[in-house]
Amino acid sequence: MWQPCTVLIFLATLIVVNCQNSAFDITNQIHLLRPKSGSGGDLIPGISCSSWRLGVEAHNIIDWKLIPTECEDYVGHYMLGKQYREDSKVVASEAFAYANGLNLTNDGNNIWIFDIDETTLSNLPYYADHGFGAELFNATSFNEWVDRGEAPALPESLELYNKLLSLGIKAVFLTGREEDQREVTVKNLKQAGYNNWEKLILKDSSFSGKTAVFYKSSHRRNLEKKGYKIIGNIGDQWSDLLGTPTGNRTFKLPDPMYYIG
Amino acid sequence: MWQPCTVLIFLATLIVVNCQNSAFDITNQIHLLRPKSGSGGDLIPGISCSSWRLGVEAHNIIDWKLIPTECEDYVGHYMLGKQYREDSKVVASEAFAYANGLNLTNDGNNIWIFDIDETTLSNLPYYADHGFGAELFNATSFNEWVDRGEAPALPESLELYNKLLSLGIKAVFLTGREEDQREVTVKNLKQAGYNNWEKLILKDSSFSGKTAVFYKSSHRRNLEKKGYKIIGNIGDQWSDLLGTPTGNRTFKLPDPMYYIG
Repeated sequence: MWQPCTVLIFLATLIVVNCQNSAFDITNQIHLLRPKSGSGGDLIPGISCSSWRLGVEAHNIIDWKLIPTECEDYVGHYMLGKQYREDSKVVASEAFAYANGLNLTNDGNNIWIFDIDETTLSNLPYYADHGFGAELFNATSFNEWVDRGEAPALPESLELYNKLLSLGIKAVFLTGREEDQREVTVKNLKQAGYNNWEKLILKDSSFSGKTAVFYKSSHRRNLEKKGYKIIGNIGDQWSDLLGTPTGNRTFKLPDPMYYIG
Repeated sequence: MWQPCTVLIFLATLIVVNCQNSAFDITNQIHLLRPKSGSGGDLIPGISCSSWRLGVEAHNIIDWKLIPTECEDYVGHYMLGKQYREDSKVVASEAFAYANGLNLTNDGNNIWIFDIDETTLSNLPYYADHGFGAELFNATSFNEWVDRGEAPALPESLELYNKLLSLGIKAVFLTGREEDQREVTVKNLKQAGYNNWEKLILKDSSFSGKTAVFYKSSHRRNLEKKGYKIIGNIGDQWSDLLGTPTGNRTFKLPDPMYYIG
């Protein structure tokens, strides 16, 4: 006979699986996710994973290497469940409402900066297999995943991208991925539904050893020098959004899985 | 006989009341708070109040006048329940860990900027009687509350203040309150447990009509010109933390009740 707990776990699994959007299929959906409390892992003794996540998103907790061990299941539930998508949707909606309210003159110089990983494309299928940020980052295995070129779009970002393009704003992708991943990145962007961009800026060797803030703000400065107006800037890391010039307005997508300084 | 729903509401009320910390008594604890879903108001159709709150804390949702009507109960539960305090605790702990790790030389010039309302002192007793941000701000009635000088300390901030002082860091209070509230503010700070400060800066008439970002960053610049080193800066509003100079590191306390630009 089934134990009550088994039934609960089965129901929780059903809920998690049903919360997936078919346009955003995460491979390997079956994980060892088990709620540590009735409401999805919030009430773990000693630490509030919900408070930790808020601390990360509001840029209070910085320079971290791994998510707290106690929060692996919490972060997994968050990322695979509906809240991550709801949170992303609010950010994307707010970004579009802002851009739409500007009544821009279309002189062809209006651009929007999109980060790529966990912004334009989602590596959730990879991180779901690697502890949602609880395992130390392994560049070799992560690059193998990137080189497959199969990362799905984050659906809320794809919708924002399409709506911004309809306002005459051009997309500029500015990513920490390196130049040797240009080809697979182009292929992946197109496969995920991103077909038009003004520029795709990857990191070249002149920025080796520099911080993400320095690399990204240098390129934003160059874009402004060339006459572009950075209407908005969206990324999942604060290092996408800090450093002068930031762009007219910035939008922080959720990412409780890793930190890039 | 009791209806199941009545029992649930009674239990929810018990939980809310029991989550209060005795050092942080909020007057008028009985509110018309009723969960709109089983887990405290998260699942309101059409809007995720949890996503809205995250959007506010991560500076994605700005320039808002009122909380969404649907989120009044959600925000009320959040503010009176344990999550607000847990979230504040994580911010304060992170701030102290940062300061403590600096191994500062005590030359008497190290300062920490504290905002006052919803940072050093809590106006939650007032907002609990005024819809937790769902009612339009009424300066007259709010100033009557301030003039009583009875705002309690936010306990997590008081603890941070005491620990920073023990590191030889001096407190500078920088508030949007105006000069005519100096006396009552001094009285209230002392009554709440804040007994030492290097400066208490209130807004004088020369800043009338200026933004909070301009007012606060101007004073931070002046402090640096005088030789102070701003080790850290904590506030509940992004306008406490934006604008050059920000201070060496900034900390954003939660506040889903109001927005100051």
